[in-house]
Amino acid sequence: MKACFFKLHGWLKVKKSIIKQLEPLFYPKSVAVIGASNNPAKWGFSIFNDLLVKGFKGDLYPVNKNEEKISGITCYKSVKDVPKPVDLAVIVVPAKIVPPIMKECVEKGVKTAVIISAGFREAGREGQKLEEEVVRIARQGGIRFVGPNCFGIINPFSNLSTTGLMSLYITPYVPKGSIAVITQSGNLGTFMLKLAFERGFGISKFVSSGNEADLHFEDHLEYMAEDPDTKVIVGYVEELREGRRFFEMAKEITEKKPIVILKAGRTKTGHKAAKAHTGALAGSDGVYDACFKQAGVIRVEEIQDLFDVAVTLVSQPLPRGNRVGIVTGGGGFGVVAADMCEELGLEIPPLTQETLQRLNQRLPPRWSHSNPVDLVGTMEYSYVCIGTLLKDENVDSVLAISSVGSPSKIFDQYPPAIRNQLAEFAEMMVEWESTRGVTGLIERIRKYQKPVILAAPPTSREESEAIREFEKNGIVVHPTPERAISLLTYITKYAEDRKKKSGAQNHNSFSRYSP
Amino acid sequence: MKACFFKLHGWLKVKKSIIKQLEPLFYPKSVAVIGASNNPAKWGFSIFNDLLVKGFKGDLYPVNKNEEKISGITCYKSVKDVPKPVDLAVIVVPAKIVPPIMKECVEKGVKTAVIISAGFREAGREGQKLEEEVVRIARQGGIRFVGPNCFGIINPFSNLSTTGLMSLYITPYVPKGSIAVITQSGNLGTFMLKLAFERGFGISKFVSSGNEADLHFEDHLEYMAEDPDTKVIVGYVEELREGRRFFEMAKEITEKKPIVILKAGRTKTGHKAAKAHTGALAGSDGVYDACFKQAGVIRVEEIQDLFDVAVTLVSQPLPRGNRVGIVTGGGGFGVVAADMCEELGLEIPPLTQETLQRLNQRLPPRWSHSNPVDLVGTMEYSYVCIGTLLKDENVDSVLAISSVGSPSKIFDQYPPAIRNQLAEFAEMMVEWESTRGVTGLIERIRKYQKPVILAAPPTSREESEAIREFEKNGIVVHPTPERAISLLTYITKYAEDRKKKSGAQNHNSFSRYSP
Repeated sequence: MKACFFKLHGWLKVKKSIIKQLEPLFYPKSVAVIGASNNPAKWGFSIFNDLLVKGFKGDLYPVNKNEEKISGITCYKSVKDVPKPVDLAVIVVPAKIVPPIMKECVEKGVKTAVIISAGFREAGREGQKLEEEVVRIARQGGIRFVGPNCFGIINPFSNLSTTGLMSLYITPYVPKGSIAVITQSGNLGTFMLKLAFERGFGISKFVSSGNEADLHFEDHLEYMAEDPDTKVIVGYVEELREGRRFFEMAKEITEKKPIVILKAGRTKTGHKAAKAHTGALAGSDGVYDACFKQAGVIRVEEIQDLFDVAVTLVSQPLPRGNRVGIVTGGGGFGVVAADMCEELGLEIPPLTQETLQRLNQRLPPRWSHSNPVDLVGTMEYSYVCIGTLLKDENVDSVLAISSVGSPSKIFDQYPPAIRNQLAEFAEMMVEWESTRGVTGLIERIRKYQKPVILAAPPTSREESEAIREFEKNGIVVHPTPERAISLLTYITKYAEDRKKKSGAQNHNSFSRYSP
Repeated sequence: MKACFFKLHGWLKVKKSIIKQLEPLFYPKSVAVIGASNNPAKWGFSIFNDLLVKGFKGDLYPVNKNEEKISGITCYKSVKDVPKPVDLAVIVVPAKIVPPIMKECVEKGVKTAVIISAGFREAGREGQKLEEEVVRIARQGGIRFVGPNCFGIINPFSNLSTTGLMSLYITPYVPKGSIAVITQSGNLGTFMLKLAFERGFGISKFVSSGNEADLHFEDHLEYMAEDPDTKVIVGYVEELREGRRFFEMAKEITEKKPIVILKAGRTKTGHKAAKAHTGALAGSDGVYDACFKQAGVIRVEEIQDLFDVAVTLVSQPLPRGNRVGIVTGGGGFGVVAADMCEELGLEIPPLTQETLQRLNQRLPPRWSHSNPVDLVGTMEYSYVCIGTLLKDENVDSVLAISSVGSPSKIFDQYPPAIRNQLAEFAEMMVEWESTRGVTGLIERIRKYQKPVILAAPPTSREESEAIREFEKNGIVVHPTPERAISLLTYITKYAEDRKKKSGAQNHNSFSRYSP
């Protein structure tokens, strides 16, 4: 591992120019899709139509030696026949003809490429040779490329998506946002894109880096660090090719932008699977772990955490400490949450006399009179209670469980007279929860500069205007208290790390991530 | 804790008759709702209308001294005024008037009761006294009751629901099924009901046991053990009042019906929260843990696991060992899954030569050639591959990640010509996946008597006919591989425990839980 971690590469990098070199990759004036197809079962179909339909603003050229037109657009036999300059070539042809295709790209003067095709390093010795040949040709011609064996790139700021079929399922447009995704697994990337779309969160850039024959994770990281649209960088990693470079860069970047990483291949079995996947030499997990810790990288354990942590960092203030105020619609969730908080090192502090008095005024006498605050079914006060806890000086963050959600529109089962009564009631609650509630809560988060983490059972998700409203504002509503607490633990530990780093006098500098 | 765990109660139980005693609770011929209301903001409104709308077949009587009619039905000033016998009284009045109301129930000859009202043991000394008084009155009159401070009961087999407003959000009818839920938290119960409805799984009985002033968790357990509609019993526990009785019963029950339990209040903080919630003395977690282990109870750690484990036990065969075959739509998920499997004690065995050859015939040359099987984007073969792995003698269970789901209907963004092509393609895949795919897979699960655990990213859920079809058949589709592996670990460990218990010669007796 160590040998690999610090190994020198066969070519010299012109490091300082990476930002410039990747400009035509993320902001191309023209794109050629080599292997574009009229057959909907082919990636070449989906990728070309993705670009077409998503409204890419530059020139778009299908290249396929067997077709006259692709989706009604004039098709070229070779990239060399394209009448104008090509900034980006998306290559989606069988692995064995990628070298001659790359040669044509060099001859054409193409600046950057994305090689979607698989069958290289990950497929054994033959593939390894093929990959080396492609790198050699590209380097000679000065072409920087992503892949091979990848899922493509997305830049919502230039209406660019080379990700093909899967992304069609997701969304006509991946929304613009401030999270950059760099992933060594296309599928994991898709998973994150789906989450983003489902919840209405945006991304700034997306790169599925594949085998990283030319451009490495570290190159993309360097680019995202400078990208003005990116506030948080999220990564799925099986292997870091340039461990030393990563470490040096990450140390600096995390001072300004958080990096959230899921490092897989941490066990022997996982390591073996990673080798089969991208040919990665996953290496000793201990070395990675130490590297991430020292560099201030947030290492998460579950796929879902990657996006949840990133979204929360983008949209909420960091907690100033580990003391959590808990509000629940019912006591059982409070007990489960209390257990997990203690196990993960979060404290559930006593509330101040002032807070207790305020809550006494609001809640019926049977409320829990302590933290966790059990609303004992009086849901209409939940947002007010969250606000009261935010104000409490003993509390650094608030966890609200099952206290969002509003009556749904499924009252149709009732006789008309009852339905009307219910409708009135429901309207009142919806109004309270979605309009005043959400807005009021976001105002309070801003005012007190403390995060609020929400958990609500899954069915509420589809029903509740309030949940959609929260997620539009970057506040994730987690399906279970356990997931919410896991997230809260990550951001609390991150905040504590930064506090240690920057010294006590400066510990509120994190508020730059507030909404 | 020990003192509490084995403590003797102030009254003698007529144990043998519990089944008979609870008959009028779950199958009442008549129900009176004491505290029924015309005000939609009151539980008395929702509970009464729940019974009305859900089509309870017996006689239904609203009781409220201030109303002439409730939802158009003649209302009685007192339960004593009801002209016919009352099997079940649902009591939803302020705590302090519950004792005189219970006295009236005794005078009326009511057989059983559910006390929804809170403000008893959980609310301090005064409440404790009130609770003791209610118990005294009920015992003298021979009334067994659920609660107080609870969310009510549901029996879909008698169209009975006393759970009020929340259940209105969930479903007009909780579907009939074979999972019994006993919960010491109403909110956690609701969470499970919502999951059940969302995914189309049924329940056999539901009890929110509240403070358990009279009927204990153990009483409900004894009833569910004998209930012919119940195949698996799920419980949320903060405190077991009769530890010894629980242990003796559970040992016997788990021979026939699995018991899945989430025991909260395992930490000091959780313990404190439990005391505030239901007045529970949560006790030493070590004692509980040992008790569960010895009794063969499946103890889960997260809320979501409760239902997932139960559903899987009801609908799938148990694995014969810990060797997992993994199929993924892309390699990254395989790496993450391999890591987690190793960490949780599941093995990822090499595949037999026969299996490798079969897969070679189906998959393009670039497939992973090992376990995890990476389909490298060729999703159309996923069900066939799952079948091939099931057949492999090295494999005890199959985990399929991101290999369900079918193209959605969101092709509207495309120009008409492309849309038509896509529609044809989509139709083909939908047909493959939902009809042939799901049916074929379920047939194979039955044939090979091995479980298949599925994980697919969240967005697919709404889109995919296939996922709905799976869940209709009791096969949970998990949102992440981590959740799927957590579930698989629980059922694998349970299967291993039972194998040890029943001896090697008999290890396939678990197949009674197959669909």
